[in-house]
Amino acid sequence: MEFTKGQGTGNDFVIIPDPEGALILTPELVTGLCDRRFGIGADGVLRVVRTAADPELAADPQRYGGAEWFMDYRNADGSIAEMCGNGVRVFARYLVARELVATSEFLVGTRSGQVAVVVSEEAVSATMGHPRLLGETTARLGGQVFTGTAVDCGNPHLVCPLPRSVRLTELELTAAPVVDPGLFPDGVNVEFTEPVTGEPAGPDHVRMRVYERGVGETLSCGSGACAAAAVTLHRSGQAAGLATVDVPGGRLTVAITAEECALTGAAVLVAQGTVFRDALAAPTV
Amino acid sequence: MEFTKGQGTGNDFVIIPDPEGALILTPELVTGLCDRRFGIGADGVLRVVRTAADPELAADPQRYGGAEWFMDYRNADGSIAEMCGNGVRVFARYLVARELVATSEFLVGTRSGQVAVVVSEEAVSATMGHPRLLGETTARLGGQVFTGTAVDCGNPHLVCPLPRSVRLTELELTAAPVVDPGLFPDGVNVEFTEPVTGEPAGPDHVRMRVYERGVGETLSCGSGACAAAAVTLHRSGQAAGLATVDVPGGRLTVAITAEECALTGAAVLVAQGTVFRDALAAPTV
Repeated sequence: MEFTKGQGTGNDFVIIPDPEGALILTPELVTGLCDRRFGIGADGVLRVVRTAADPELAADPQRYGGAEWFMDYRNADGSIAEMCGNGVRVFARYLVARELVATSEFLVGTRSGQVAVVVSEEAVSATMGHPRLLGETTARLGGQVFTGTAVDCGNPHLVCPLPRSVRLTELELTAAPVVDPGLFPDGVNVEFTEPVTGEPAGPDHVRMRVYERGVGETLSCGSGACAAAAVTLHRSGQAAGLATVDVPGGRLTVAITAEECALTGAAVLVAQGTVFRDALAAPTV
Repeated sequence: MEFTKGQGTGNDFVIIPDPEGALILTPELVTGLCDRRFGIGADGVLRVVRTAADPELAADPQRYGGAEWFMDYRNADGSIAEMCGNGVRVFARYLVARELVATSEFLVGTRSGQVAVVVSEEAVSATMGHPRLLGETTARLGGQVFTGTAVDCGNPHLVCPLPRSVRLTELELTAAPVVDPGLFPDGVNVEFTEPVTGEPAGPDHVRMRVYERGVGETLSCGSGACAAAAVTLHRSGQAAGLATVDVPGGRLTVAITAEECALTGAAVLVAQGTVFRDALAAPTV
């Protein structure tokens, strides 16, 4: 089975070409591919399907008809996810590198609808859902309580800009921050930010660390960067604008307009080859 | 650059063919390949060099002359290591799979001399250094003190068979066990074992967890399994014999004779392909 491995600001993916939609991507196959010791290792799998080849997708031309390719995204645990901001950027990089699209600006089909992408040599941009600011609440981490803003990006976020007395590097993100379970019944991704000063990127430039629900601290989170950008702009009195978000895995820029939110950053293909599917079996002891 | 990825009981390796010894394997390249997010991801790199092609190796025919192939092993942090029990087994699997050797029993050159290997469809066996039992000492973990036996396998080990009152699954191996620094000035790999009963493998069958110095808990440790086997046999009154060691990554068997110690277990190739060397760069933020 052919594969390509790629990453976007440290979120990594195994890309499986399946233009004719012939592959049955079982949870066992996904977990086998994503296992970092017994497989290739990744945060998720991106199956590359031609929209017209899949009967279910072809039956909904209004939703998918404009996108030639559909991103079937799976989490490393085998579960299905609607969208992934860094995943769709790596997916777009793959389509251009393999010459599966004729232009550098196109639509990608996802379970949450079509996503517009722009691919350049340095970066890939994807237009995500517009972040909705919901109001103030708190997150408790260790003995400290931080005030933050709840944000809906399709998935729930809580962005806590740190007070001046606390440095981002000092945070111990080894356990989930404690939040109001009434506000976040399905859990929440918590972002902590601090300003980056003295760089050419301008005033709306923050450094961010994220604790993803059910995962732990990660190197990057695309929707989290969008949420952090929205809060950063809001705090400087802007409903729209451009913010830069440095995550442990690299730099993302977020452009927010009245209707849209475009996430931009590096998306890189690292390797390609053949995976020996029969070799992915877990140990039997 | 061509690569193959393989694993032996959950220790995984990036294998780089370099028959003519032309590749300069810098620490940056090794860490780039082994990075689990920005590279391919592995515990180490195995460079495959024809012994005759390397001037330094060819200059020492007594040490390497019997082995057609040399395993240049590097740890994931870029440092050089003498030997790796699971690594040499995966290396041997690769040589047979790529038809780089004519037989299934041969010698592999390593920095600690020649290692005899036997490759079958199910498993690969490698003859390691004979474990030397050194005497009793203790390891403290959490609030508990465990008695164990210090073992020299070329690298230092401390094997602690658990008392009946403690289950292996209950141990919290999140921090290094505290040992006598006078006995282990360079640190030590600590193995905890408990008997496995009611299986066909026989009385000398243990389950093992290992805390590797400088790394933490790992899925497997080849020399640790040899040390655990030697202590298990010794405790049942045998200086030689066969022991089975179940590690989190699978099952290893260890055959100890008066002079030798043969480690046997699965060694599997998972994927092969091309790695885009220029894409391995770390983020610049």
